[in-house]
Amino acid sequence: MKITIGVDVGGTNIVCGAVESSGRVLAKVKRPTGASDGSAAVLDRIADMVNEVRAAAGAGVSVESVGLGIPGLVDPAAGVSRFASNLKWRDIPVAAELGQRIGLPVFVDNDVRMYVFGEAAAGAGRGYEHVLGITIGTGIAAAIVNGGDLYYGYKGMSGEIGHIRMEGVNEVCSCGLIGCLETVASASGMVRQARKALEAGRASLLAERFSGEGLERMTAADLSSAMDEGDALATEIITRAGRLNGQALAAATMTLSPQVIVVGGGGALAGERLLAPLREELYRSVLDNFREDLQVLTAEHNDDAGIIGSALYARRSLESK
Amino acid sequence: MKITIGVDVGGTNIVCGAVESSGRVLAKVKRPTGASDGSAAVLDRIADMVNEVRAAAGAGVSVESVGLGIPGLVDPAAGVSRFASNLKWRDIPVAAELGQRIGLPVFVDNDVRMYVFGEAAAGAGRGYEHVLGITIGTGIAAAIVNGGDLYYGYKGMSGEIGHIRMEGVNEVCSCGLIGCLETVASASGMVRQARKALEAGRASLLAERFSGEGLERMTAADLSSAMDEGDALATEIITRAGRLNGQALAAATMTLSPQVIVVGGGGALAGERLLAPLREELYRSVLDNFREDLQVLTAEHNDDAGIIGSALYARRSLESK
Repeated sequence: MKITIGVDVGGTNIVCGAVESSGRVLAKVKRPTGASDGSAAVLDRIADMVNEVRAAAGAGVSVESVGLGIPGLVDPAAGVSRFASNLKWRDIPVAAELGQRIGLPVFVDNDVRMYVFGEAAAGAGRGYEHVLGITIGTGIAAAIVNGGDLYYGYKGMSGEIGHIRMEGVNEVCSCGLIGCLETVASASGMVRQARKALEAGRASLLAERFSGEGLERMTAADLSSAMDEGDALATEIITRAGRLNGQALAAATMTLSPQVIVVGGGGALAGERLLAPLREELYRSVLDNFREDLQVLTAEHNDDAGIIGSALYARRSLESK
Repeated sequence: MKITIGVDVGGTNIVCGAVESSGRVLAKVKRPTGASDGSAAVLDRIADMVNEVRAAAGAGVSVESVGLGIPGLVDPAAGVSRFASNLKWRDIPVAAELGQRIGLPVFVDNDVRMYVFGEAAAGAGRGYEHVLGITIGTGIAAAIVNGGDLYYGYKGMSGEIGHIRMEGVNEVCSCGLIGCLETVASASGMVRQARKALEAGRASLLAERFSGEGLERMTAADLSSAMDEGDALATEIITRAGRLNGQALAAATMTLSPQVIVVGGGGALAGERLLAPLREELYRSVLDNFREDLQVLTAEHNDDAGIIGSALYARRSLESK
């Protein structure tokens, strides 16, 4: 059986998996990225992980190629990571250097594009011609797949919807702009909003659980729990994040006309708490024609979409070479 | 010489032109649409116009195909106008019916897409790989051309950026939504804003020129003249329209990553009066990476882009058949 290997390179962890053409994951390993060791050490680590899952996948399989999803700006044609701030990578020829180490063709692309490619090919977007995927995590980003093809735009920079300016949002974003969607509607943004409110003395179940330095340990999952227990602050923050994502997606929908929107990333774990207000705002903000068929679904392979997408992308890239 | 014919079907007028492969217009005729006569009569009229420009283009040319830009929802693959409110057309098989009348292959698509295709192929967007075109007229719409290919999306409904909800806009749109960009930032929207202010007694040069029923004659060009004479109301309305268009284009830019934005339609005739605030708002609302190379240009063939685009689109469609 011919398989491909997908690698999801994150700022904290690297996940590497052996993936069948159907998208099924045969074997998987996860390691800390250790970005501070430098890019050569990280590439050595990835090469080890590739060999490990290759062995774990069994004797009957032959690995044809490897795909990598890398955060930040990536040049897929050149196989180069142009800029990844959390890895401190700039102009690293990943495809060539990893290819040398493992003796297989290597294809690279942006991690969110790989994630959405995975969901479009073998996840919630399967069977739809026009897929818009959004990941709600530390930041918010999107990617578009039409008829199996990823959309890139000039320098592959499309999909930066986390930095759209939103009505009524006044937070300064790490990018330097003011009022960016992701400052309040990403998983990190929601937590930041809660922390700020608690520090300002707002009453909440969260205030009883996290105080002082404990505030740093609070996560988006804690907000979900508090919302389930009827906490007003958590409900307010998650509902607002849902609405703002819905409003930004309404603009993206009328611009791009997807048939399905797949919502993934850590923020999507809030499920209907976030998706109900998201859908409500989205549907009431688009023209009738868009409202009719548009689906909003959560990602099917939230944890594995990155490796599945990278592996299937490598398969497709090798075939079309 | 082999040429193609482009037809721009508007609610008020039809323009039909014989176009060389370079985009040069050899001959052109313009007639009132007379939509109230029904679609059969309009198609008869278009057939006459096609034959007329064919004859006018001279004996040395052979017409290979005809392209039509039609407002509203168009299904290019089926050759059908699905819905055009100002023509009162619904499910009219334009390609088949016009093809029968003129004995030539006929290709149809949405008018804004044809306009932007014309500017991308033979106008301000020539030579750029990623072109976003926007027409600011009665409404506001956009189209995207990547590497010479039009972007469609599900049911070909992409590009409806005129209905994005804008901060601080509270007008009810003809589509039923509230706060749509085109209610205040289209050519018609600007005139409507001026009319409303004058009716409310606002002092302005325009109040001296247009009053009572005369208000109905006021156009976007009159607002431009008043702005040139230092009128505060006209300046305010055009500047705000420019800023709002810039803000909507910032969201579209981060979603799509164009390298050049081509601004056309009647509203673009306001030139730098509108474009200066548009650019200012656009550049200050996008991430640094987008700011570097992004160009904002006015359409080169504002009047003829529709027929040039339709003709070149027909040429391309015939070749790829």
